[in-house]
Amino acid sequence: MAMTELSGVRTYLLGLQERITGAVAKLDGQPFVADAWQKEPGEPLQGSGVTQILEQGSVFERAGCGFSHVRGPKLPPSATQHRPELAGAPFEAMGVSLVFHPRNPYVPTVHMNVRMLAATPPGGAASDAVCWFGGGMDLTPYYGFEEDAVHFHQRCKDALEPFGSDKYPRFKQWCDEYFYLKHRQEQRGIGGVFFDDFQELGPDRSFAMMQGVGDAFLQAYLPIVERRQNLPYGERERDFQLYRRGRYVEFNLVWDRGTHFGLQSGGRTESILMSMPPLVSWQYQRPIEPGSPEERLYQVFLPRRDWL
Amino acid sequence: MAMTELSGVRTYLLGLQERITGAVAKLDGQPFVADAWQKEPGEPLQGSGVTQILEQGSVFERAGCGFSHVRGPKLPPSATQHRPELAGAPFEAMGVSLVFHPRNPYVPTVHMNVRMLAATPPGGAASDAVCWFGGGMDLTPYYGFEEDAVHFHQRCKDALEPFGSDKYPRFKQWCDEYFYLKHRQEQRGIGGVFFDDFQELGPDRSFAMMQGVGDAFLQAYLPIVERRQNLPYGERERDFQLYRRGRYVEFNLVWDRGTHFGLQSGGRTESILMSMPPLVSWQYQRPIEPGSPEERLYQVFLPRRDWL
Repeated sequence: MAMTELSGVRTYLLGLQERITGAVAKLDGQPFVADAWQKEPGEPLQGSGVTQILEQGSVFERAGCGFSHVRGPKLPPSATQHRPELAGAPFEAMGVSLVFHPRNPYVPTVHMNVRMLAATPPGGAASDAVCWFGGGMDLTPYYGFEEDAVHFHQRCKDALEPFGSDKYPRFKQWCDEYFYLKHRQEQRGIGGVFFDDFQELGPDRSFAMMQGVGDAFLQAYLPIVERRQNLPYGERERDFQLYRRGRYVEFNLVWDRGTHFGLQSGGRTESILMSMPPLVSWQYQRPIEPGSPEERLYQVFLPRRDWL
Repeated sequence: MAMTELSGVRTYLLGLQERITGAVAKLDGQPFVADAWQKEPGEPLQGSGVTQILEQGSVFERAGCGFSHVRGPKLPPSATQHRPELAGAPFEAMGVSLVFHPRNPYVPTVHMNVRMLAATPPGGAASDAVCWFGGGMDLTPYYGFEEDAVHFHQRCKDALEPFGSDKYPRFKQWCDEYFYLKHRQEQRGIGGVFFDDFQELGPDRSFAMMQGVGDAFLQAYLPIVERRQNLPYGERERDFQLYRRGRYVEFNLVWDRGTHFGLQSGGRTESILMSMPPLVSWQYQRPIEPGSPEERLYQVFLPRRDWL
């Protein structure tokens, strides 16, 4: 993929961020605040980004959607394990990443990410750049609705279908494996799709597949928000939501490779931690009432399941 | 140190846990709930413990104090880097660890830990066991008071003085280095003392030093609680406390070796995470008002400083 085409990826990602924040701001009634940042000269990575954030909205208590585009002089060893010919190659990485924490406990939290990594073999021309794509989206309900889970997974499947019918089942399983809290023996939510290091369809079709996932996000999530955002709830549901948000924090800070590695290696802290919930609680061995809607989350929605 | 003496360490630790939870429950007016646990046969480590926890008390919003005593067939490589003669040796580890999160934002959060690791060289007798000790305590204010910081550090220094005047300065610096949030370029709090892998005074005196630290805890912390627990506060102070508690979560889940390793390696999750605050908030680039008491925390209390 030549450098001119990388600019196409950048244009797509910036447009996606605008479309998503625009639609979500419209639904919420409150705009996102855009915070443009730039790496200082001398930092290990160079580049810039725009973090867009909406806090204390009427529908979303905290919603962050970030674009970043960084360049580094040398691919880290973890990225070249299976590609020794690219060891030490200069690289570019860009992506859009979002986490939306709604206020109403009946509306699920959502995460979506699409990203690209491009490396030029040492001594090669820009047109020799090798690209991989990654991405996915997953849903984390507090109170589950089968209808919502099916809808979300169906949108994921539809988005991937044009790229081969093997993609959804593979990426659905990958998502279940990735968003797993080993220390709780629990899934983070009802999953969705996740893929990484993807180039098997060649640069253009792989990019198109990533676009398919990004483009599917609003249709996968917004109808669920619209269906649930006005359901009445009380202290009990709010309390359970704050407690379950603790699992989101635990996953992101302990297990999520991007978050953990980003914080340890000098990433932009406030942009990385826009995924943290606005308010969270912890409680020792919180009891689960048998037969309650809270127990249903653990029994029906969190275990891995084929939703379609 | 022979096995009969290890039972002395165990007796000390269980007594320390009782003394501390007894005094804190008396001050709070609410008792701790004791939860005894035991590792299942077949788990990688064998052993048992007692987690004591007080939630939603009048002074403490969440206070956990745990004792644990585990045995393993083989020291992990990280523990034998400097002691190759003990590679693969069976070991025992025991300790008391506590984190207290007060309700009033003028009362600081506190952490204390004392621990022992003993290993028997392969083929050796119980009397050949080699012991190391570790421990320390550190204070995390939301609104600082110089008087409290000086008091806390003075008690740490007094506890260590009988074991050599080099100990407090060394362990104070070690504490500052350990409780550092690299991704925020911020200390967790005003520090205290921290030591690990300690055996340089021989088993008996090293054990005595660990006891000195454990015994000093109540005198180091409770007078501060008593001075501050009835100060009136409002939403502004509460809000800042919830925000700053986020740093505690970030430190423990991202940087604390014990927590991170414990969760990743199958430790007892609920006991490890008793250190999490009861209620926490995150906010994007929260502004700090110039000249405010909140700014004073960052400018006067968090930078590393000689308090004595």
